[in-house]
Amino acid sequence: MSRIAPISGFPEFSPAERLVEQRFLDVIRETFELHGFASIETRSVEPISRLSAQGEDADKEIYAISRLAGGSRDESRWGLHFDLTVPFARYVLENAGTLDFPFRRYQIQKAWRGERPQEGRYREFTQADIDVVDVGTLAAHFEAEMPLVIADVFARFPVGDFVIQVNNRRLANGFYAGLGLDDVAGTLRIVDKLDKIGPQAVADLLVGAGATPGQARACLDLAEIRSFDLAFVDQVRALGVEHPELDAGIQALTAVIETAMAHAPGRVAAALKVARGLDYYTGTVYETQLVGHEDWGAVCSGGRYDALASDGRTTYPGVGISIGVTRILGLLLGRGLLRASRSTPAAVLVAVTSEEERAASTAVATALRANGIPCEVAPRPDRFGKQIRYADRRGIPYVWFPGEGGGQVKDIRSGEQVAADPSVWRPPAADLRPQILAT
Amino acid sequence: MSRIAPISGFPEFSPAERLVEQRFLDVIRETFELHGFASIETRSVEPISRLSAQGEDADKEIYAISRLAGGSRDESRWGLHFDLTVPFARYVLENAGTLDFPFRRYQIQKAWRGERPQEGRYREFTQADIDVVDVGTLAAHFEAEMPLVIADVFARFPVGDFVIQVNNRRLANGFYAGLGLDDVAGTLRIVDKLDKIGPQAVADLLVGAGATPGQARACLDLAEIRSFDLAFVDQVRALGVEHPELDAGIQALTAVIETAMAHAPGRVAAALKVARGLDYYTGTVYETQLVGHEDWGAVCSGGRYDALASDGRTTYPGVGISIGVTRILGLLLGRGLLRASRSTPAAVLVAVTSEEERAASTAVATALRANGIPCEVAPRPDRFGKQIRYADRRGIPYVWFPGEGGGQVKDIRSGEQVAADPSVWRPPAADLRPQILAT
Repeated sequence: MSRIAPISGFPEFSPAERLVEQRFLDVIRETFELHGFASIETRSVEPISRLSAQGEDADKEIYAISRLAGGSRDESRWGLHFDLTVPFARYVLENAGTLDFPFRRYQIQKAWRGERPQEGRYREFTQADIDVVDVGTLAAHFEAEMPLVIADVFARFPVGDFVIQVNNRRLANGFYAGLGLDDVAGTLRIVDKLDKIGPQAVADLLVGAGATPGQARACLDLAEIRSFDLAFVDQVRALGVEHPELDAGIQALTAVIETAMAHAPGRVAAALKVARGLDYYTGTVYETQLVGHEDWGAVCSGGRYDALASDGRTTYPGVGISIGVTRILGLLLGRGLLRASRSTPAAVLVAVTSEEERAASTAVATALRANGIPCEVAPRPDRFGKQIRYADRRGIPYVWFPGEGGGQVKDIRSGEQVAADPSVWRPPAADLRPQILAT
Repeated sequence: MSRIAPISGFPEFSPAERLVEQRFLDVIRETFELHGFASIETRSVEPISRLSAQGEDADKEIYAISRLAGGSRDESRWGLHFDLTVPFARYVLENAGTLDFPFRRYQIQKAWRGERPQEGRYREFTQADIDVVDVGTLAAHFEAEMPLVIADVFARFPVGDFVIQVNNRRLANGFYAGLGLDDVAGTLRIVDKLDKIGPQAVADLLVGAGATPGQARACLDLAEIRSFDLAFVDQVRALGVEHPELDAGIQALTAVIETAMAHAPGRVAAALKVARGLDYYTGTVYETQLVGHEDWGAVCSGGRYDALASDGRTTYPGVGISIGVTRILGLLLGRGLLRASRSTPAAVLVAVTSEEERAASTAVATALRANGIPCEVAPRPDRFGKQIRYADRRGIPYVWFPGEGGGQVKDIRSGEQVAADPSVWRPPAADLRPQILAT
């Protein structure tokens, strides 16, 4: 049998780290549901032809599956999904007859990519996506809604400050076209490298691709514009470029920023350098950064797409955004920036006096559980000092000693011990669940 | 690109069905945590050599993965896990140095098996497992604890009555040995077919395998014994077979049933026909049935194992039980026995008077969400009648009309409409979340 060893790129958390992950996932789910998104899960596999259709780079990232003992032809054509957007588009087409549109869904699932693992990049990872899709046309207000949901999620994460950066493809496209640059998509791809290679290298690449130094300068000037309010409009206008698509883009971005100023002030910035590599975005694009950790890149991104889901007759335009859950946690936990106050959900360890009296301890535990208090009965009737150390090692804050009238409960941090009735006793709310602490 | 179509054995739920699944998963998780089990997730892939080591049948069920574009040698040796027990055993060995023992963990994840799909049997499915493992030896009381946890879970499912059937491998082994049957494991495998092929066929197989008609009769007599109390002890003794292993098995099963009688009366039966096919069980075995749906077979099963996790020097004996979540839901939803009261988490639709006044509706929604009330802002400023129909189609019980002082909220089922302040209004608790209804 194979050696026991981790597999690079397939992270596994300790129980305490998993408690941090669960809290993040709970926040995400609760917030998505407060905003009226319905959960779906799609199967983990898609036909490879569907996965491959998403661009030249997709192929090399796909994990194909096959029956070890030799299977049908069908199975040899399946691969694990590498994101949740492609399966969602297929789900919408497959179920268009029974879904209610506009369809608001969230999806929290694992995905797999065969890329080289590195810090914050994994081969198996969890994504949390929201999307709204409609039939034929999609109202612009949905593009303004996405950042409000994400702001609510990140405000509840113990990650400090964050900025949801927003741009609009039409704004950039119109600007480049108005400048007289023919290869709009190519220009966008070069400007997208700005954070990685710096402005001088971007300017060189643009000139190498046929731009004049003046055009390259204008592209960089545009990319530098960033505002939490509508100041970006005048700054773009001051660059003196004119194009109907530019006007349309400015108008759309203005609507998004106005909504953000009203409902999530200080969280959302117009950032005209945001490009997002994926070809299928057609309008607003999003990219979220943690303040102080900008070098981690985008931890949550997305945008509007008009042609991702289409059956040839009907098109289902949508807008969506995806939180890189494993990416965020891998970075935060990997650097020791977060920890859980204990390694188990149990708030109480019920001590056991002797194996013969275990039933009395189980009865106390049953009473606590009936009140929603997670607890565990001690595994062995050791000396109480040893049972207390068992709790302490796991970070369990209370030890219960069964006895007459219910017994006594000890806060092992303060040493305080009081008589208590397990059918009514409650710990302070902060002790009921493990706390997630920034360190 | 491939035709849009379901893939047999890879089920996908509608949003309303998914709400039922989420409720089941919430009950499972909450109950596991109340009992002090900590969550872990293991990676989806294991080395194929580890998966294959679990028996001759394992190979044909394994999905191997490979990089579509050609990968390293490593990846060609990985497969998707087909249960959560094998990965858990590996996780324990890999992390033995940092885990606290006895280690109580739960794990709710997808698994994959390349078997022929049929009703209630899938190629991709979700399992929910609890296990307790210790170092060297495992106290017997953990075997008595498992059914208490499962009884708490199933009592909260809207599935009607259920029975957790319990047996002990040592009891059966000792009985067969005491009878003079040499091939104890072979006998167990034949008796395990009882529910499928009936008593006469089992007797024939036993005789065919070398048993006398009297021995075969005694095996069937043992298999017929079933009691919710300790009556099984005298019934076994009345069969007149004697063996030290039989005594040990009776004693162990007595302890499990006594605990169940005290803490989960009427939920747990000694059922001496329960065999469980897997070779690695060494003590108590469990098999849960839904009353009235016994033909569905076991929906939750497990047992004690002593040698599943071992690094050659140290052995980690454990006891565990696994709920077949997708199996239960596939059967219940497939037969229309359960439904959700709505297809979205939203309890309120906030109506929109005009696109210009959308901000007022968003402000109402923000106030409701701050109170934990899931809601959605109407997608279009249609006539109110049309907006109400939008809510009705999704099963959203309330429509909010923004206005002075907050506006008015209408229960669209009763038609009752009252003035209300979104910062304090609350729906009845039953309306806050979708209800799961037995039909």
